[in-house]
Amino acid sequence: MYRTHTCGQLRVTDVNKEITLAGWVQTIRKFGAITFVDLRDRYGITQLLFGEQLQPELDANPLGREFVIQVQGFVQERSNKNRNIPTGEVEVQVHSFKILNKSAVPPFTITDETDGGDDLRMKYRYLDLRRNAVKKNLELRYAVSRATRNYLHEQGFMDIETPFLIKSTPEGARDFVVPSRMNAGQFYALPQSPQTFKQLLMVSGYDRYYQIVKCFRDEDLRADRQPEFTQIDCEMCFVEQEDILHMFEGLIKHIFHEVKGVHYKEKVERMTWEDAMWHFGNDKPDIRFGMKLCNLKKPASVFLQKTDNAALINGADFKVFDDAETVIAIAAPGCSEYTRKQTDELTEWVKRPQIGMKGLVFIKCNADGTYKSSVDKFYSEDKLKAIAEAAEAQPGDLILMLAGAEERTRKAISELRLEMGKKLGYRKETEFKLLWVLDFPLFEYDEEGNRWVARHHPFTSPKPADIDVMINNNPHIEDAAKYLEHPYANIKANAYDLVLNGNEIGGGSIRIFQRPLQEKMFAALGMSEEEAMHKFGFLLGAFEYGAPPHGGLAFGFDRLCAILGGSESIRDFIAFPKNNSGRDVMLDAPGPIDEKQFQELNIILNLPE
Amino acid sequence: MYRTHTCGQLRVTDVNKEITLAGWVQTIRKFGAITFVDLRDRYGITQLLFGEQLQPELDANPLGREFVIQVQGFVQERSNKNRNIPTGEVEVQVHSFKILNKSAVPPFTITDETDGGDDLRMKYRYLDLRRNAVKKNLELRYAVSRATRNYLHEQGFMDIETPFLIKSTPEGARDFVVPSRMNAGQFYALPQSPQTFKQLLMVSGYDRYYQIVKCFRDEDLRADRQPEFTQIDCEMCFVEQEDILHMFEGLIKHIFHEVKGVHYKEKVERMTWEDAMWHFGNDKPDIRFGMKLCNLKKPASVFLQKTDNAALINGADFKVFDDAETVIAIAAPGCSEYTRKQTDELTEWVKRPQIGMKGLVFIKCNADGTYKSSVDKFYSEDKLKAIAEAAEAQPGDLILMLAGAEERTRKAISELRLEMGKKLGYRKETEFKLLWVLDFPLFEYDEEGNRWVARHHPFTSPKPADIDVMINNNPHIEDAAKYLEHPYANIKANAYDLVLNGNEIGGGSIRIFQRPLQEKMFAALGMSEEEAMHKFGFLLGAFEYGAPPHGGLAFGFDRLCAILGGSESIRDFIAFPKNNSGRDVMLDAPGPIDEKQFQELNIILNLPE
Repeated sequence: MYRTHTCGQLRVTDVNKEITLAGWVQTIRKFGAITFVDLRDRYGITQLLFGEQLQPELDANPLGREFVIQVQGFVQERSNKNRNIPTGEVEVQVHSFKILNKSAVPPFTITDETDGGDDLRMKYRYLDLRRNAVKKNLELRYAVSRATRNYLHEQGFMDIETPFLIKSTPEGARDFVVPSRMNAGQFYALPQSPQTFKQLLMVSGYDRYYQIVKCFRDEDLRADRQPEFTQIDCEMCFVEQEDILHMFEGLIKHIFHEVKGVHYKEKVERMTWEDAMWHFGNDKPDIRFGMKLCNLKKPASVFLQKTDNAALINGADFKVFDDAETVIAIAAPGCSEYTRKQTDELTEWVKRPQIGMKGLVFIKCNADGTYKSSVDKFYSEDKLKAIAEAAEAQPGDLILMLAGAEERTRKAISELRLEMGKKLGYRKETEFKLLWVLDFPLFEYDEEGNRWVARHHPFTSPKPADIDVMINNNPHIEDAAKYLEHPYANIKANAYDLVLNGNEIGGGSIRIFQRPLQEKMFAALGMSEEEAMHKFGFLLGAFEYGAPPHGGLAFGFDRLCAILGGSESIRDFIAFPKNNSGRDVMLDAPGPIDEKQFQELNIILNLPE
Repeated sequence: MYRTHTCGQLRVTDVNKEITLAGWVQTIRKFGAITFVDLRDRYGITQLLFGEQLQPELDANPLGREFVIQVQGFVQERSNKNRNIPTGEVEVQVHSFKILNKSAVPPFTITDETDGGDDLRMKYRYLDLRRNAVKKNLELRYAVSRATRNYLHEQGFMDIETPFLIKSTPEGARDFVVPSRMNAGQFYALPQSPQTFKQLLMVSGYDRYYQIVKCFRDEDLRADRQPEFTQIDCEMCFVEQEDILHMFEGLIKHIFHEVKGVHYKEKVERMTWEDAMWHFGNDKPDIRFGMKLCNLKKPASVFLQKTDNAALINGADFKVFDDAETVIAIAAPGCSEYTRKQTDELTEWVKRPQIGMKGLVFIKCNADGTYKSSVDKFYSEDKLKAIAEAAEAQPGDLILMLAGAEERTRKAISELRLEMGKKLGYRKETEFKLLWVLDFPLFEYDEEGNRWVARHHPFTSPKPADIDVMINNNPHIEDAAKYLEHPYANIKANAYDLVLNGNEIGGGSIRIFQRPLQEKMFAALGMSEEEAMHKFGFLLGAFEYGAPPHGGLAFGFDRLCAILGGSESIRDFIAFPKNNSGRDVMLDAPGPIDEKQFQELNIILNLPE
């Protein structure tokens, strides 16, 4: 061993001990005949003092930043204590040292606030990983995985490894494929998730399965997506939705407790998908704050159970609202005094292409009870007051209203709500708020193909009450314009998402476990019997031999860690992430392969001109 | 929840409770108006009693093997107790039941001794996994992983995930490659191990890293090889060989204790590679038994430090021995009374192509102190006695002697020793014996390429004493016939293998951590500077910025589990294994991919005519 103690270990109680440390040179400060060096390792920083008698040796073997050294010395109490670090009361009076390895000058500083840009830090990821900020993220990640494993173990779950070289069954996302040398002309696929395997394990009776497992999707990348990502993947049998919700909110609460010291006492809220869309405009609402949507107007074909407030805005000859499919308002607390500049900025914000609205209508609910609006000439003070009441606005609030096509408007107002929530400080990193979103539609309509697609995946069961609707109706959509009238449009899935602070951190469903229903599902998605057998014959076969009722869920492990760490980027929580082109710039991968590999794999390149 | 208890839970203390169970029908036995059903789940088997009043219902909904049912009933004490199972004192008097799913008649019986052949069981792996024998293996696997994680956590190791989509650097084994869609014409490789990443983590200061991780090698498969396999992968920095041996024999002892209840008190034995080869004929000796090799004759060029017993056999005009490079004997205890048939069988055994020897020479050491040999006419009784003494044979033993080329003969006698050990009952599944094999040669000679190859891998450090030999000599081999005289032939690696009962369960090394030595290593292996930079530039770069001394090791997780489970086949310890052609016969993978995938990946097939 190169050391007797770590750099985070020594305390006043160790004074006078002779010790050996090894680590990296963080800083060097010379004061005449003595030199102070901060020595760093995974555990902390210890101050070293190179006294007069060691200076000639230091002059002969000068140290530099990030040099790896080993020192022997005595622990002594510091006169000038550093209360910010646990080792700050002592220092080591060095009596001999050895340079274990030198370092070139690093391309950026190894400090919390580094001077290195993103690209440089990705290229020298092994240096970036030395920074305390990054190390804390990986430590948090390990703590989350450890808490997860311990909780699931206590609950009787078994970690069972599923294969990585499987069969390509492109549904939705694209597979990464792997040419097989031993089976010429054939390919494995890397799993997008262990979905079918965990279901087979239920058929095998393994009851409570889990895995923290890499998954792969060959999709164009956004900032928070990686081609390879990690899931906490779970499945149970002989359970109903309620059992699963209970089990996995327990897991997240356990993680909060173990990793963040947060004792999440409240009951986890629940909301139907329809309510989430109606009140928040999206299916993963951030319920750390209110500002619920006031639905002033909606098309007749959607939210059949809901009533809009069209009476409040209709008949005012305001063409923008009259022509719009949908009008929605939110009340931003305490913003009635926004200046023209501020409201202009908000208007510009909603007009950005990412949001894509044509404009923003304001009503200022003045503190004195009066109203001032950008549409004063269409709406009397009384009408404005009625709208304000519907939007639950208080004096001092600013009402923001968007109008346009249903889908885009709802999405835009949802984004605007989040933006205002952020501006107003309602989205605190340190506050955690869980929400189950339930009763998703089972199908979505794919306009291009005029067919149904599975909103979750093809293995999700409809609600028990909807099974007959599914079985007894022909999935074919006669009139694309009236797809909403097809009985399939209203089938609800036995599915659930767990939302944390406006992020979907996990989702799952009760699965189909009867072959006829699974076959109907494949048919509904436009798969021929032959195709279904080719792709999923093993699963349909398994359902013939005593498949138990089962269900499960998967958490996005990278994102869960990021949210717990108070970050928006999952990349900061992955040791060796890829960039937006799917490249590892440190390795310079992917790269070319050699001729022999092409030959053995029986493939050749066919690059576009 | 579909049940109040599991099928392994009920005891006499539960008598009179009303309970609900769910599970699979294991067996059905009808006795007139009553029916006994054994209901099975992951936790055990409970006997159900369907009484008279339930028979009409049973007749209407007949049960079959592997049906999934839910039953309500009362627990009652059995008159005819089954002491073999924990639930054997009770049964459940069923008052209602529900068939949750039917089952076709399974293609083989779900019993410990199944009637299903290998192929059938692989195809219906989800049914095979129901068998208790297979379930126990996966439970053992989970227990080993859990014990591993707990031990390493206590020792301060961090689980850090390394990427799966990396760069192809074909060394030794073949890479599986993954065409990149976003980077046309380029390929990722799947990792053969996280070797370079764990070293980078040491450069980053993560100190104690571990991962239980899938690795991939595209090699032709033998019975105990899988294209994807799992490693317990570990690395530490600021350590020397001794620290690593201590840490990881601790891990294995902890696993023994937690998983097998074995308290391994002895010191783990250690042996140099040279001693292992000299005394046992291979580098992973099974030291549960003796029968060490008696080296009667060896070529002068090998085992320079060892002395053979050539005087005992030379000068007898026995051409077979005189012409042989190598003659080695072992003494099989208590086998002197072997019949002609038995010795003929042994002779046939060594003549099989897998062993490839021309014959076997015997000396029977009779109980009365006399000797009888198949080479009596060349060796007098005195000479036979001298050989017997050298072989440490006792009266009653049978000496087996092989002669031929050094490498083949040594391998053959090693195999013969293991075979005799097995025959004689010395290789007990329940006995565990660990051994460190140390001081491996750093290089092996590749005849075909007339070059050095790394015996372990290119990142293994030479012993400190040999570093100068490596740096200061030109690796080029002038005369292929005299490669053994090259200084590189005697360089010892700072490497170690952990052997359990004659199986290598883990291996590792102290790594090179200085760029010049690593460059010399790449050059020694015949890599040009350009090639080294292209493949491993990131690692050479990392060594420029303060790389600490480090080392580590990896265990073959599948094999470790198999040995602990007393099996020779790793396949029995993998939930979804592949066959010898790398196929998953259940999934029918690998398989074809579709035209769109080829187009997106910019490749086309180029099958041999």
